[in-house]
Amino acid sequence: MDVSPRLLVVRRGQEEESFHRGRAVVATATGETVVAIGDAEAPVFPRSAIKPMQAIPLVASGAAETFGLTDAEIALACGSHVGSPLHVATAQSILKKIDLSCDALGCGVHWPLDSGQTRALAARGEEPTVLHNNCSGKHSGFLAVGAVRGLDIAGYTKASHPIMREVTNAISLLTGATLDEAQACVDGCAIPAFSMPLVSVATGFARLGTGEGLSPVFASSVARIRSAIVKNPVMLSGEGRFDTCVTAGCSGEVFVKSGAEGVIAASIPALGYGLVVKIDDGAHRAATAVMAELLLYVLQKHSLVSTKAREMLKGYACFQLKNWNGTNVGSAQPILFDGP
Amino acid sequence: MDVSPRLLVVRRGQEEESFHRGRAVVATATGETVVAIGDAEAPVFPRSAIKPMQAIPLVASGAAETFGLTDAEIALACGSHVGSPLHVATAQSILKKIDLSCDALGCGVHWPLDSGQTRALAARGEEPTVLHNNCSGKHSGFLAVGAVRGLDIAGYTKASHPIMREVTNAISLLTGATLDEAQACVDGCAIPAFSMPLVSVATGFARLGTGEGLSPVFASSVARIRSAIVKNPVMLSGEGRFDTCVTAGCSGEVFVKSGAEGVIAASIPALGYGLVVKIDDGAHRAATAVMAELLLYVLQKHSLVSTKAREMLKGYACFQLKNWNGTNVGSAQPILFDGP
Repeated sequence: MDVSPRLLVVRRGQEEESFHRGRAVVATATGETVVAIGDAEAPVFPRSAIKPMQAIPLVASGAAETFGLTDAEIALACGSHVGSPLHVATAQSILKKIDLSCDALGCGVHWPLDSGQTRALAARGEEPTVLHNNCSGKHSGFLAVGAVRGLDIAGYTKASHPIMREVTNAISLLTGATLDEAQACVDGCAIPAFSMPLVSVATGFARLGTGEGLSPVFASSVARIRSAIVKNPVMLSGEGRFDTCVTAGCSGEVFVKSGAEGVIAASIPALGYGLVVKIDDGAHRAATAVMAELLLYVLQKHSLVSTKAREMLKGYACFQLKNWNGTNVGSAQPILFDGP
Repeated sequence: MDVSPRLLVVRRGQEEESFHRGRAVVATATGETVVAIGDAEAPVFPRSAIKPMQAIPLVASGAAETFGLTDAEIALACGSHVGSPLHVATAQSILKKIDLSCDALGCGVHWPLDSGQTRALAARGEEPTVLHNNCSGKHSGFLAVGAVRGLDIAGYTKASHPIMREVTNAISLLTGATLDEAQACVDGCAIPAFSMPLVSVATGFARLGTGEGLSPVFASSVARIRSAIVKNPVMLSGEGRFDTCVTAGCSGEVFVKSGAEGVIAASIPALGYGLVVKIDDGAHRAATAVMAELLLYVLQKHSLVSTKAREMLKGYACFQLKNWNGTNVGSAQPILFDGP
C-alpha cells in the first residue's frame, strides 16, 4: 500500500516528538483534481464531514419550507454541535415544529462534545439527554423529512428506511460515489456510514458550493444550505471550535465541516473548489492544522483571503504547544508541499 | 527516514477506517534487544512513562524513610493520576509530611484527566487545584527530596536545580542515555523532558524490574518502588484506566506506565524485560492496544499469564467500537508481527 506523506510534525522544543501522515485533495464539481497530496482515490469514511449533504433532503423535500424552519435550524441539521443550551434549544425547536418529542431521536445520548459545556451541565446537576448528542440537529432534520413525506419513522436510522434512502441518494448524487445500501457500515449516531474515494468527498463539497451538475431542486437546496451555514456558523459546531471559527472568519468565502477520525471537508464556492483532508490515524489536531494550511494555500493563490482571515488560518495551521503553566513547550507545523 | 510499521488497524464494519504506525522494543537490563518492531534506536520523548525512574531520588535520598511515606504515597509519586478525591488526599498527605502547602507545587492546574472525576468536581461546584494535576504526586515527591536535602525549593522545576539534577541523573543511570541538561526540553508539568533512543527506555524498565546494573542504594530503591506500585496500582492512574488495570490484573508480574504522545513502558521483573511502545502520531488508544498485545506475546511465550490476565489483555489489544446506542460499529486490532 502507498505510504501517505507526513502532513503535520509536532515538536517538543526543536525536536520532533510525533507526526501525522495523511491525504488531502482539492477538486472541482466535475471531479477534476486541483491538488492531490497522497492517494486521492483510496477510500475514506467521510463521517460527519458530509452532514451538509445529508441535510439536502430536508430542503429538497420541502420539509424546511413546510415547517418554517429557520436558517439556524437548517444549519444545525448540518452541524456536529457542542451541546450548548442554544444548540439544545434549536434542536428542540425543530422537533416542536414537526410535533415530535426528543424520544423520537435515534442518535443516542452522550455528554456534550465541549468540555466546558459538559462541566456546565454537571454543575447544574443535570445529565445529558439525546438533545445534547452532537447529531441531534441532523436527526431532527431527518424526522422532518419523514413528517413531510408522511412516513412511519420507526427504524428511520436503518439504511433501508425511506428517509435514509433519500439521504444516501443525496450523498451519491453530490459525490458521484456508488453507495450500496447492503454494504453500509454504521455511524456513531446509528445511521449508515459509507466509504468512498477521497476525491469524491472533495467533488461533493465543490457541488455543495456551486450547485454545478445538480438538478434545479438540489441546486437551490444546496444554495439554501450554504446560506444558512454561513449565516449561522455557530450551529456547525460551537464557540471557539474550528468549523465555526473558520467558517465565520472567512466571511462567507469558505465553509468547513469536520467528521470523526481525522476528516475535514470544506467548500470555496467562489472558486468552485471542494477540499478534503483525511489523517491516517484519525487525529483531529492534525486535520484542523492541515485543512487550515490547505485553505491558506488555495485562498492566497487566488487573493481571496483578508489579512484577518489569513492570521486566523495561520494560527490553526502552525501553533505553539503550551504546558499547564502556559509556558511554550513546543510547536506543530504542517508540511503539505515540501516536507520530508 | 524509516517508515514505522502499521501497529493498529481501526475498522468500521469490515473496512479499514484509520490506522496507527509506531515502534516497540523489548530489552534486557544490559540493553540486549529481545523484540524490536520498527527503529529501536530512533529517539522518543518518554514523558510520564518514566515517572517510576523520576521517583528514585525520593527513596534513594532517604526522604521516603525520613518522612515516613507510605507505599501508596510512593506509588502516587510514580503515577499520572486521574484527580480522584483519593489521589488528591494522598498528594496532600505527602505535602503535610514535609510541611509544605500545595502552593509549593509547580506543575500547574488542570481539570482531572478522568472525565467522570471532572464532572464530579464540577457537580460539587468546585474548581480544580494544583493537587488535581496528574503530576501532583510526583512533584510532591520532588519537594520531599528537597526537604530531606535541606534545599531551597525555589525554581525546583528547572533543569539546573539540584532536585532536577538528581532526577535527571537517576534517569540517565537507569536508561544508560546521556542527558544534556543544556538540551532539556520542557514537559507538561514544567520539569525537564529529554529524548533518548527507544531501546533506552526499555532498558531502564528492565532495570526498574530487577535492579540489575544499579548501585546497591538504587537497586533497593527500585525494589521499594516496584513493591509500592504493585500494591497500589490505583495510584498509577485510576479506576478503570489502562495502567492501573493491567498492573492490578497481572498480579505483580507486570507494571505499566503511560506517558503523553503515545508512549507506554512496562516491566516484567521475573523475565528481566523492559518493554516500550511509541505510536508515531501520539495516540493513546493505539499505545494501549499495542502494549497489551506485546505483553500477551511475551507473557504467553514464558507461560507467565493467568487465564484471567490473558482475557484482560486481549480485551485491551482487540476491542469493539460501539456507538452511542451501544451497537458494535467496528473494531480495532493490533498487527505487531505479521501485519501488512
